[in-house]
Amino acid sequence: MADPQNPSAEDSLIARYFKPLATDPGAFGLVDDAAVLSSSGDDIVVTTDAVVEGVHYLATDPPDTIARKALRVNLSDLAAKGAAPAGFVLTLALRGKEDSWLRPFADALGEDSRNFACPLLGGDTVSTPGPQMISITAFGRVPKGRMVGRTGARPGDRILVTGTIGDAALGLDVLTGGAAAGALASESQAKEMLVSRYRVPLPRNVLAQAVRDHATAALDVSDGLAGDLTKLCAASGVSARVDVANLPLSAAASGLVAGNVVCVETLLAGGDDYEVLCTVPPAQSDALIAAGQAAGVAVTAIGTIVAGRERPRFLDGQGHELTLKRLSYSHF
Amino acid sequence: MADPQNPSAEDSLIARYFKPLATDPGAFGLVDDAAVLSSSGDDIVVTTDAVVEGVHYLATDPPDTIARKALRVNLSDLAAKGAAPAGFVLTLALRGKEDSWLRPFADALGEDSRNFACPLLGGDTVSTPGPQMISITAFGRVPKGRMVGRTGARPGDRILVTGTIGDAALGLDVLTGGAAAGALASESQAKEMLVSRYRVPLPRNVLAQAVRDHATAALDVSDGLAGDLTKLCAASGVSARVDVANLPLSAAASGLVAGNVVCVETLLAGGDDYEVLCTVPPAQSDALIAAGQAAGVAVTAIGTIVAGRERPRFLDGQGHELTLKRLSYSHF
Repeated sequence: MADPQNPSAEDSLIARYFKPLATDPGAFGLVDDAAVLSSSGDDIVVTTDAVVEGVHYLATDPPDTIARKALRVNLSDLAAKGAAPAGFVLTLALRGKEDSWLRPFADALGEDSRNFACPLLGGDTVSTPGPQMISITAFGRVPKGRMVGRTGARPGDRILVTGTIGDAALGLDVLTGGAAAGALASESQAKEMLVSRYRVPLPRNVLAQAVRDHATAALDVSDGLAGDLTKLCAASGVSARVDVANLPLSAAASGLVAGNVVCVETLLAGGDDYEVLCTVPPAQSDALIAAGQAAGVAVTAIGTIVAGRERPRFLDGQGHELTLKRLSYSHF
Repeated sequence: MADPQNPSAEDSLIARYFKPLATDPGAFGLVDDAAVLSSSGDDIVVTTDAVVEGVHYLATDPPDTIARKALRVNLSDLAAKGAAPAGFVLTLALRGKEDSWLRPFADALGEDSRNFACPLLGGDTVSTPGPQMISITAFGRVPKGRMVGRTGARPGDRILVTGTIGDAALGLDVLTGGAAAGALASESQAKEMLVSRYRVPLPRNVLAQAVRDHATAALDVSDGLAGDLTKLCAASGVSARVDVANLPLSAAASGLVAGNVVCVETLLAGGDDYEVLCTVPPAQSDALIAAGQAAGVAVTAIGTIVAGRERPRFLDGQGHELTLKRLSYSHF
């Protein structure tokens, strides 16, 4: 029930925590029901991703990391599509409205919003008796017709991936007391790095233009490299050969694989990487790798697109094919 | 866990139920992470509204009505902003994935999507152990700079509202066994009409262009006419005088007020109307009313914008001011 002398609780919650994030003129300071995205003939790229407490993040994760993850999983999609961030809308399903949770959540969201030039355009807050959920729809801009899709991969294209693979899955393993937690019991720095990769993705928006300039197809690795590459190949009507020895692994992940704590198949199927996976004509792969170097982001060639419709093959250093029990993480 | 021989469960759920709704070329048949909204210099109007089981709809509501409500509360925002629907993205937080729920949900969503020319552009399905939630972000188009805001109301403007007010709140009362349920025990047609207004809003998109042509400010009445008018006045820096005798009530609502089953204050503060409330210069109010007549939608003048900053006054037939204990329904 609203107090007739005061704006409704939802309005004051929005004004208090989220209005400072609504810096774009099209957000109208969040006083309207709707926002305006202006366009001068650009295409607007739209992506939507939700994170649910207990499913995509842990109830014990700090609120600032939850905010960053909720926004960054969407920024990562924009990066893979070659789009420059233009803004986002937020739906927040909350059990309560404690300042101790909302304040660090909103502050971190605001900081990321500024750093990635992606202002808040509007939103909706609803109450829920169940787990909290943050649903974000993010917008980007590309020149007309230039969004990088999934269907353009061609035989001969090199397969490139940014950053490292598998760290986030290992971070979740550390947080939930899995095998990695035991093996790294005395290595707090490695554990912190892995947990950080799980909680706070590093979307590669700095490479969006290079991806747009060079990639024939791209997506962000969110459900596991093996599964996401399989989807890209299916959409393009091609197959792939991945040299597993070339997979970019962090020192911590390499150590755990070398010590037989985890197998590389687990890293290939682990979720939450939020790296860009793309296919690039051979003549242009050096240019994308160089763009990565200039931006301080590793870009690694891990294989080649080949003709055919069979599922991608993952080959070890001896040319033997790995058997993947699963390709990706699914929440169903 | 996904079956490596098959697409992930989420992918097959999307393909089975929602791909048929993704008729816009910018949706890429839902095979991509992102969609494209093309624009030829139009402004893109963005609005987002979520509905939560047990909060915005009842767990016992039929899935087809839940789908329609989730989309229509957003279509209603577009109508009030003077925008033509361009598409929407959907986040569906589900506890399960029973065909008996998803099939009628998707079919009704598809039907509304076609009827309102608002295609599905993309989405995300997530699992939740808690109440189900449907979050929709909808897009509309207006000529550059022509979105109807909340800040343009000027003293002397007439206040117009579409349809009838209070029926949805009475429908909820019927469903939850309130006073209206008792009073209408033997009037099944009236009960059905009220319940239908609660479950399935009637967004006034047919009047969007007339609103854009004539209104100085507008919003859709979602949280109660009294509270929403108060917000519009605050945003415009004006006050208002509403003649309560002119409020458009259905026969069922009028009867309940006349019988002292409910008071008009309850209808003024009831939620879920999803009618357009707008302010129009006096010389143009007849044109908007005529546009409503042509479209088969009642448009009623209920009062006048006046100078000042005090809260809007609601006057009965004798010129006495009503005392509103609350202005609107708040979920917090």
